[in-house]
Amino acid sequence: MKELIIEPKEEKDPVSQLRDWVEHYRPFSANGQSANYIPALGKVNDSQLGICILEPDGTMIHAGDWNVPFTLQSISKVISFIAACMSRGIPYVLDRVDVEPTGDAFNSIIRLEINKPGKPFNPMINAGALTIASILPGESAYEKLEFLYSVMETLIGKRPRIHEEVFQSEWETAHRNRALAYYLKETNFLEADVEETLEVYLKQCAMESTTEDIALIGLILAHDGYHPIHRKQVIPKDVAKLAKALMLTCGMYNASGKYAAFVGVPAKSGVSGGIMALVPPSARRDQPFQFGCGIGIYGPAIDEYGNSLTGGMLLKHMAQEWELSIF
Amino acid sequence: MKELIIEPKEEKDPVSQLRDWVEHYRPFSANGQSANYIPALGKVNDSQLGICILEPDGTMIHAGDWNVPFTLQSISKVISFIAACMSRGIPYVLDRVDVEPTGDAFNSIIRLEINKPGKPFNPMINAGALTIASILPGESAYEKLEFLYSVMETLIGKRPRIHEEVFQSEWETAHRNRALAYYLKETNFLEADVEETLEVYLKQCAMESTTEDIALIGLILAHDGYHPIHRKQVIPKDVAKLAKALMLTCGMYNASGKYAAFVGVPAKSGVSGGIMALVPPSARRDQPFQFGCGIGIYGPAIDEYGNSLTGGMLLKHMAQEWELSIF
Amino acid sequence: MKELIIEPKEEKDPVSQLRDWVEHYRPFSANGQSANYIPALGKVNDSQLGICILEPDGTMIHAGDWNVPFTLQSISKVISFIAACMSRGIPYVLDRVDVEPTGDAFNSIIRLEINKPGKPFNPMINAGALTIASILPGESAYEKLEFLYSVMETLIGKRPRIHEEVFQSEWETAHRNRALAYYLKETNFLEADVEETLEVYLKQCAMESTTEDIALIGLILAHDGYHPIHRKQVIPKDVAKLAKALMLTCGMYNASGKYAAFVGVPAKSGVSGGIMALVPPSARRDQPFQFGCGIGIYGPAIDEYGNSLTGGMLLKHMAQEWELSIF
Amino acid sequence: MKELIIEPKEEKDPVSQLRDWVEHYRPFSANGQSANYIPALGKVNDSQLGICILEPDGTMIHAGDWNVPFTLQSISKVISFIAACMSRGIPYVLDRVDVEPTGDAFNSIIRLEINKPGKPFNPMINAGALTIASILPGESAYEKLEFLYSVMETLIGKRPRIHEEVFQSEWETAHRNRALAYYLKETNFLEADVEETLEVYLKQCAMESTTEDIALIGLILAHDGYHPIHRKQVIPKDVAKLAKALMLTCGMYNASGKYAAFVGVPAKSGVSGGIMALVPPSARRDQPFQFGCGIGIYGPAIDEYGNSLTGGMLLKHMAQEWELSIF
Repeated sequence: MKELIIEPKEEKDPVSQLRDWVEHYRPFSANGQSANYIPALGKVNDSQLGICILEPDGTMIHAGDWNVPFTLQSISKVISFIAACMSRGIPYVLDRVDVEPTGDAFNSIIRLEINKPGKPFNPMINAGALTIASILPGESAYEKLEFLYSVMETLIGKRPRIHEEVFQSEWETAHRNRALAYYLKETNFLEADVEETLEVYLKQCAMESTTEDIALIGLILAHDGYHPIHRKQVIPKDVAKLAKALMLTCGMYNASGKYAAFVGVPAKSGVSGGIMALVPPSARRDQPFQFGCGIGIYGPAIDEYGNSLTGGMLLKHMAQEWELSIF
Repeated sequence: MKELIIEPKEEKDPVSQLRDWVEHYRPFSANGQSANYIPALGKVNDSQLGICILEPDGTMIHAGDWNVPFTLQSISKVISFIAACMSRGIPYVLDRVDVEPTGDAFNSIIRLEINKPGKPFNPMINAGALTIASILPGESAYEKLEFLYSVMETLIGKRPRIHEEVFQSEWETAHRNRALAYYLKETNFLEADVEETLEVYLKQCAMESTTEDIALIGLILAHDGYHPIHRKQVIPKDVAKLAKALMLTCGMYNASGKYAAFVGVPAKSGVSGGIMALVPPSARRDQPFQFGCGIGIYGPAIDEYGNSLTGGMLLKHMAQEWELSIF
Repeated sequence: MKELIIEPKEEKDPVSQLRDWVEHYRPFSANGQSANYIPALGKVNDSQLGICILEPDGTMIHAGDWNVPFTLQSISKVISFIAACMSRGIPYVLDRVDVEPTGDAFNSIIRLEINKPGKPFNPMINAGALTIASILPGESAYEKLEFLYSVMETLIGKRPRIHEEVFQSEWETAHRNRALAYYLKETNFLEADVEETLEVYLKQCAMESTTEDIALIGLILAHDGYHPIHRKQVIPKDVAKLAKALMLTCGMYNASGKYAAFVGVPAKSGVSGGIMALVPPSARRDQPFQFGCGIGIYGPAIDEYGNSLTGGMLLKHMAQEWELSIF
Repeated sequence: MKELIIEPKEEKDPVSQLRDWVEHYRPFSANGQSANYIPALGKVNDSQLGICILEPDGTMIHAGDWNVPFTLQSISKVISFIAACMSRGIPYVLDRVDVEPTGDAFNSIIRLEINKPGKPFNPMINAGALTIASILPGESAYEKLEFLYSVMETLIGKRPRIHEEVFQSEWETAHRNRALAYYLKETNFLEADVEETLEVYLKQCAMESTTEDIALIGLILAHDGYHPIHRKQVIPKDVAKLAKALMLTCGMYNASGKYAAFVGVPAKSGVSGGIMALVPPSARRDQPFQFGCGIGIYGPAIDEYGNSLTGGMLLKHMAQEWELSIF
């Protein structure tokens, strides 16, 4: 991450601060660029940057391009993992995917060959996410996706829309994901057909959201699966905790360790420029989000690791300024 | 980790609970064994298990073999990392060692060759710890060690004793560590001589402690470097936070992800059977260690990952029973 | 390879010797077994062992189960490589596949990821053979295969028969080959569609032959592409020499080095138990095959490397007894 | 290798041809450069190019800088391998080092970790050569070297001189070789001490020779260990054949496959710019070296693989013009 120039602390309200920071970091998008390996993703305005923060009492604060829709991409891996744990149970899932971070690229295939028997290391890399997609309940891609959409609906209150152009674009160029899926098929970690699994995986990646939607999911996770606005437990507590730990250790591609070290909140990014983050309730009374919050960020220009460049800068600045780190 | 049988919650005080759990898990040591690649380490009684918990008001609770001395081994990596950051500054250290977890064995050499330019991925694996040892201030092994001992003295109030037999034993069989060090020397990540670096590294591993000592270091880290008993900041806050993040993402060898997921507190283990863990202050009023605590555990029978087998079971049980997870 | 018990040299003619050796080595098939990952391949009688040797004057000597048909499997890699070089020219082929041996398994995918830009190391491993299949001339699998069959017809005088059951069996379980092909598609080394390429590759593997057919191809290669019986050049000399070098350095899976060292003749094996070998004309007047010969061997029980167990023993014995090594 | 411009065949004697070719290729040295990681090696005149060819009747033809002394570097690996086989027997040696080519760099350490139990793949890569150095007979570096020098004396009729400056230079910067040696020590493939082994290995690399010396060793190998001038067997036949096979499959670093394919004679190079090659007796009466020959080449400018750039061009040209390939 680039150097952060921390402005002198003033007595500003969080909303004004957020707006200042968004405009401060927005120009840095010139140092990154939107993912162009998927034509449909590369069409966006790279200088967009927006954020939405949701608090348990329903307060929403936002700034910048907070209500621009974007596809979830890898952020969806958290949701499909939760869906798999909710339907299959954690032990069933962990028999097929480990929860260990790796230092490998998200689409790496090496470790599947080197480490016998080739169990994917975690659900946040593509090999693990494909395995998770294959074990979602249902006898077809359609049924698996319906289940996933129903989990999404429970969380964000609406059925997600699939961005068909992005899906088609990824479907046609998914050679590396097909390579991973066929490899996993051979080693028996994939329970569904390869093409069926790919359809589920690529459609989950193409689910459209806004920063508000992912801030809400973040808020629910911050509260261990309890939906503080609807006042009900929508994700089992142990599943929510597991998801948060995975976000912290593996959520930001090969910069996950650096995010844990210098940002210190569970976060998951996607190549379309989204970041879903969350702050659990804090012991510190002077922290502005003492009762926890969910954070949704969107900034399509991505850095060398695949994370939103300006989104990451903004998140780091907030975390340091407001002392949001869980450590 | 083996299945944990959670006993029904009763109204017991933490000390009684701890004593029950220690005796409950002690017999499981038969499923592991003390590290025998170092003869001096293999001589201990495998069924030992002890724990010490320190609270910021000075309260100490303990159970089992809590005051048996043992060598720190890899737990010392946290301390030398802190010492390097305190003396050289974080940016200098991060230029030489990254903070990303890997899925590789602690003594793996592969990634140094595959990932150019071969910068060690984190200070908790041997390649990173050797690099850290080489940049400690001082012109000789003696001076570097003196600096490290002085940091230890600041933390635990006494100069650590070196277990000479363990040091000699490791020194003579340190082929793999020498291979790593020479590799790092060639790629210019090692600033000191190889033999000097190895002396520093192996003597830091041979520093003797008790669960009380490491519980105290844990307590200081829990309070972001503030020594709550001496009432002074002994480690800079940013260094302490960084160390905690590294413990959580990389501290328990290749089970770090599983510990983050199912225990959820920063912890660092050593092959001699020690675990240094900590609980930051919590938002939850009903948590027994609401103001944070440091935890020292000793159980020399280690599991397949190199972590204390019964110590890990005890820590997991405590974390789940008392809801200590930071997530 | 197992220990060879060399019988005392007697004044026996080669045919009698061959028959003795075939019967001597046949029982060792109990130490291997036919490839069972393809059900259709696993059905054969493992104790079969046969050999056919063809000399440039048309003399054929044979022993054992020399006329049992079997599918070529990896032996076909030599033929498709020759066909690609004949139609595209050697430089075009070498731009897409190198000619370096590796120590990796035939179906390894690691090196494609580690070595940028992921050019397959040689045409005898699956990644290279798939790339070769994709560049055969023709706009469809049908056309590419027709070209390959026409090359076969030029060599052995008849159109090869495809063993449909073997093809279907491999087609349905070709997960690893699909993984390799999709990987190569992503890195732009595959010129045809993945499914088209796989059809070509798996049908070429399913071409049926006898030891006589492959002995004839060996004989032609021994004479640098000149068909000594038909008296015409059927493979360009430079292509034939290249194919022989590849057979020697990469032809016997991960035992290629050992075959070069202890057998010393260009040879290519297939998992169905075939070995195509050849002896170039020799400077030594007392060598029984002074004018060169082609050798076809069939023994379906394979060893740990994927080579015919008894076929390899027989070939080594012959090579040492008759001093056939090219070194 | 760069494009070769083949001149029209004229009725020239081999000596005139050699002289023409040497002068033709000499200027291409500008595209490479002498090894500069060893200061003492980098001091030479890069445009040197010389060759010596020895025939079994004692005829010697030479051209260019044929009598400039240079250190053997990796060419010595052939000699120490032969010495180990002669003293320990082939099975003893093969228990410790395999004879399989790899596609890895000569100083790679990866495969020792990935492939259990980490047996070096062949004696032509550093890991294998260090293992060989450790098993030479003798209780000290001095004794092992004395044995090696005695083998050299048997071959070239004189005790080799050690280039002390080169040895010292390599000794002080041998970090990577020390890393390999300590790794092998840990996995029990190194029989001697690390420092003793390194002294043997680096002194064997620093043995000085001329093209005439290595042409003579090549000639002896061409005749299966028989010294045609002294008329006695100086290397056992099986050891000589094994050495030739290793040279062909592994002798030219990661261009070995390309040399086998386009040059086709056993050859071993060193980073100082030497190439030791040989042509076994040929069946072809019109080949200028029908009764075999030894070839020594020296051209210190090396290419990307570590092979003599102009030396390789010259060897390829000769091999193609005179049809020296063994295939």
